[in-house]
Amino acid sequence: MEGTDDTLSLVLFSGTDDKLTAAAVLAVGAAAMGRKVNVFLQYWALDAFRADRIRKDHGESAEAGPEGAEAMRRARERGQEHWADLLAQAREIGEVGIQACSLSMEMFGLSHGDLDPLVDGVQGVAAFMAGATGPVVFV
Amino acid sequence: MEGTDDTLSLVLFSGTDDKLTAAAVLAVGAAAMGRKVNVFLQYWALDAFRADRIRKDHGESAEAGPEGAEAMRRARERGQEHWADLLAQAREIGEVGIQACSLSMEMFGLSHGDLDPLVDGVQGVAAFMAGATGPVVFV
Amino acid sequence: MEGTDDTLSLVLFSGTDDKLTAAAVLAVGAAAMGRKVNVFLQYWALDAFRADRIRKDHGESAEAGPEGAEAMRRARERGQEHWADLLAQAREIGEVGIQACSLSMEMFGLSHGDLDPLVDGVQGVAAFMAGATGPVVFV
Repeated sequence: MEGTDDTLSLVLFSGTDDKLTAAAVLAVGAAAMGRKVNVFLQYWALDAFRADRIRKDHGESAEAGPEGAEAMRRARERGQEHWADLLAQAREIGEVGIQACSLSMEMFGLSHGDLDPLVDGVQGVAAFMAGATGPVVFV
Repeated sequence: MEGTDDTLSLVLFSGTDDKLTAAAVLAVGAAAMGRKVNVFLQYWALDAFRADRIRKDHGESAEAGPEGAEAMRRARERGQEHWADLLAQAREIGEVGIQACSLSMEMFGLSHGDLDPLVDGVQGVAAFMAGATGPVVFV
Repeated sequence: MEGTDDTLSLVLFSGTDDKLTAAAVLAVGAAAMGRKVNVFLQYWALDAFRADRIRKDHGESAEAGPEGAEAMRRARERGQEHWADLLAQAREIGEVGIQACSLSMEMFGLSHGDLDPLVDGVQGVAAFMAGATGPVVFV
């Protein structure tokens, strides 16, 4: 039981670069601690993982304001890694699976081929919940 | 202990239709997997459960943009269920309780009778936390 | 194992007063139930804990609207406690640690001395994840 409880399940809902970076940082930290990480992509986060958009500017949360956007811009210039690279790094360190929510795929009319290769497959919410034996984090 | 750890606690804070639908989908998935679901309504989510507003348009997260709003509109036209119906469905499948946070009730000056019948009662945060033996998801 | 599973880990990302109050309420409830609480400050929440800003108006989520902002203003007038006071109260009741995320500190160019004394120290995400043995809540 201790093993399964260590799994970190990340439901990514938001598609802005600040939240996706925060989530990727948590994934890296969990993987570094030997925890399994299951990522489940819904709504605007799924949209951000489209193959043709993943590296584009996805903006920040409304609350960031001009000062916050400027802080993020400077962080990128100083070499802060993109969230997609952080997720790839988490995968090199540990066991990280990234699944797209089947209902959100339908909503956007997407198929697996439309998504970045980081995404392993498409999953129903019941299957995701069956594996969510530890903390579930909604971002 | 395995039993109690399966309980999914959902703190609903946001009152937009995209987040409430995502949360309701998680509730359905958890109930389908035989997990108990405790929903706790705070702030704008509580406001969205008022009897006279629950079926109204609650908009989307700021980040959705016109393209996202359009995708949601089309999903509704194609028959995507309302989040209130998804929660009712989760309740038919499994054990789902929906409680309003007493502090948020006070803030909005609401009494139980102002809320949709989906809401079982009003609860203090300590009572909610006492039952939150598994994952706690803030939406 | 039951002991460790009771720990509530709160990742504070958002810096608006509505979300910070909701999170502080959860911390008070958890502490009242004898649970350990670990708070981890990222991005805009970290910014809100600067010593020179913590008591300033941090606004509300975009979805609050004028009616929501007005409800919050009236709640303050009726004596609703500030989220910083609620966190201090949680600490009086139980074991509550508040750590700033080292990556976010770097992003904003902050050092520990720039933060309110409520913040105990600066922590890497792996250390935070090592202690996150119970639910992890992202606000």
